[in-house]
Amino acid sequence: MASSPLPPLLYADTATSSDQLYFSRVGVPDPFISFGIGHKRFCVQNALEFGRVKKARTFDTVLPLADWHARAVARWPRRKVGIPEVIAELARAYRLRGFRVPDDFPVALFLKLRALGLRLEPAGGPMFPEREIKSDAEAAAIREGNRLSSVGFAAAEAILRASRPKGRTLRYAGKPLTSEVLKFAIESAILREGGSSLNTIVAGGDQACDPHNRGTGPLRPNELIILDIFPSVTATGYYGDMTRTFLRGRASDAQRRLVATVRAAQLAAIRMIRTGVDGQKVHQTVAATFVAAGYKTKHTKNGSVGYFHGTGHGLGLAVHEMPRLSPAVSMRLQKGAVVTVEPGLYYPGLGGCRIEDVVQVTDRGAKMLSKYHYEWELR
Amino acid sequence: MASSPLPPLLYADTATSSDQLYFSRVGVPDPFISFGIGHKRFCVQNALEFGRVKKARTFDTVLPLADWHARAVARWPRRKVGIPEVIAELARAYRLRGFRVPDDFPVALFLKLRALGLRLEPAGGPMFPEREIKSDAEAAAIREGNRLSSVGFAAAEAILRASRPKGRTLRYAGKPLTSEVLKFAIESAILREGGSSLNTIVAGGDQACDPHNRGTGPLRPNELIILDIFPSVTATGYYGDMTRTFLRGRASDAQRRLVATVRAAQLAAIRMIRTGVDGQKVHQTVAATFVAAGYKTKHTKNGSVGYFHGTGHGLGLAVHEMPRLSPAVSMRLQKGAVVTVEPGLYYPGLGGCRIEDVVQVTDRGAKMLSKYHYEWELR
Repeated sequence: MASSPLPPLLYADTATSSDQLYFSRVGVPDPFISFGIGHKRFCVQNALEFGRVKKARTFDTVLPLADWHARAVARWPRRKVGIPEVIAELARAYRLRGFRVPDDFPVALFLKLRALGLRLEPAGGPMFPEREIKSDAEAAAIREGNRLSSVGFAAAEAILRASRPKGRTLRYAGKPLTSEVLKFAIESAILREGGSSLNTIVAGGDQACDPHNRGTGPLRPNELIILDIFPSVTATGYYGDMTRTFLRGRASDAQRRLVATVRAAQLAAIRMIRTGVDGQKVHQTVAATFVAAGYKTKHTKNGSVGYFHGTGHGLGLAVHEMPRLSPAVSMRLQKGAVVTVEPGLYYPGLGGCRIEDVVQVTDRGAKMLSKYHYEWELR
Repeated sequence: MASSPLPPLLYADTATSSDQLYFSRVGVPDPFISFGIGHKRFCVQNALEFGRVKKARTFDTVLPLADWHARAVARWPRRKVGIPEVIAELARAYRLRGFRVPDDFPVALFLKLRALGLRLEPAGGPMFPEREIKSDAEAAAIREGNRLSSVGFAAAEAILRASRPKGRTLRYAGKPLTSEVLKFAIESAILREGGSSLNTIVAGGDQACDPHNRGTGPLRPNELIILDIFPSVTATGYYGDMTRTFLRGRASDAQRRLVATVRAAQLAAIRMIRTGVDGQKVHQTVAATFVAAGYKTKHTKNGSVGYFHGTGHGLGLAVHEMPRLSPAVSMRLQKGAVVTVEPGLYYPGLGGCRIEDVVQVTDRGAKMLSKYHYEWELR
């Protein structure tokens, strides 16, 4: 879609809107107005946030909400004045005919602003297409996110190695080892190092065959255990996202072949990645690798087996952002984009395996932004 | 606004949309379609989520996205088919003329659905007004959230008591005690007990005068330290939200008077709360208490001093929800509503104090849903 000449307008908090966080570069927990004129960025803050946001110096101008509310009341003395009227008054004062808004802009506010005579256009795609290209500072922030993921793997691996198989259970510190115990070790280690990790996946056996099952209860010896850790760095808001599959005990030949096939597919995908390559082609290559190795994908009424998710996604201020390495969409990888590469295979009975790293796209190939070893069979 | 007879339609993930979480009662990290017909609830899930969401049994019907996508492709063979066409096809199949959508429904999808001939109406207020009234199970879940807040206070208080004033610093475990050390102790204790707490505030001295400043660096003896802890319970998604103000060392008379005034205002507010009382009146009473005690509120170019935030807000699947105890809006408290009561006073030089508890509105008064002592001067 063609880029619009209208200035950007956002109304969101920075916790749920990564566009607002990208534009603001300062965390604000409640929704607020921000807009741009040329290269200048403006926001409107209530008394609770004004001082802190001003001190952060990430906006060229921080306007006090109370003042602009009063101006709107003066203009519409007979009306119940709210955010729509404040925005309309800002547009009048700054001589702006209208705004470009993100596709997820709240519809009720959109309709009220149109009724007030403002011209509004949804972006019709990414609000800030430049978000897809990561600067060196952004790549470093993502690398730090992945370092936190690695801190999590190290904490979990140490516990897995220290645990003892006993019949069908793993024992650790005198108790059965559970997904919950590993998750706490992972998340508290990440917290200590300056990040936070929600929804960490520690799923063993058949649980791991549902890739978004976070995992609960006892972990078993000789079963594949998927650990998917995607922390955000508290200081910057950027995410890491890595997955490793471990097994405590002794793997079967079928498990070894599964893991080796996933890792080979991941390496094939990473080798393909460079500026201009189509993300869909990368996915198709991974899928073809699996088919060639005899791993079939099937969709049934109760779910799917084989390979039934995309190969990767952009990573930055959101865990899932542009671009995609997906079967559904053809999308050329731009220089500087950062993507996960995370093939996986899932067969109830045998178990699931996913291996995920993060790379930055360069003209010469993929540059690794994540690092943790691939040893997985912990005897 | 009058409630609409149109059935509800949502398109959101459950991490950023508490309406979607309320409707779904199961966590799904990526946006998905959900809708209701009478008392029956439907959702559409991709292969990655289908099995897990079906197993959760919170929806009457879980529809596979691939099937409905295929139906939409069959209906519009020449068009690039996406979520809008899938929703239009669902509406046709279930004979629905249109939908009621939340005010924060994504505008781009809204416009596309209208272009496809669907009648869509924003809720014009809360999407599910019944969210404001908490069932016994919901009140218990919020109480559990507040128990996690208390776990955080206990962890922090133990460290504050074990720390030693030395000149202008507090020493703990051989190092200067910082906001970061306390936050880690609080958040890891909450993690261990089954919750997660992001953005915990541990702010001392003048930092605390900016109520959303989360706090950084060394904590000092004889200074007021505000701890605001609002964890979510991992199992249910419900929040707790409590604040205590501590001081390690010896308080001045001015600090003692400040804390006593805030606590007295809180008690006055809690005593007022019962079914039918106007939240705005509760706030005005608190504000009047402060004025009567000689604590003035002033707004300056660089921020505000005194009392410049609302007295409370609804608490549930979101940290901030309906109703409000706010100067800005008159709003009668309904039986069963759950609100925070959190007056505060902030004066740079003297410091800030806020005390926050959570109550449920009953016909006979406020029922406490939070519990932690009010001893604050840790000598």
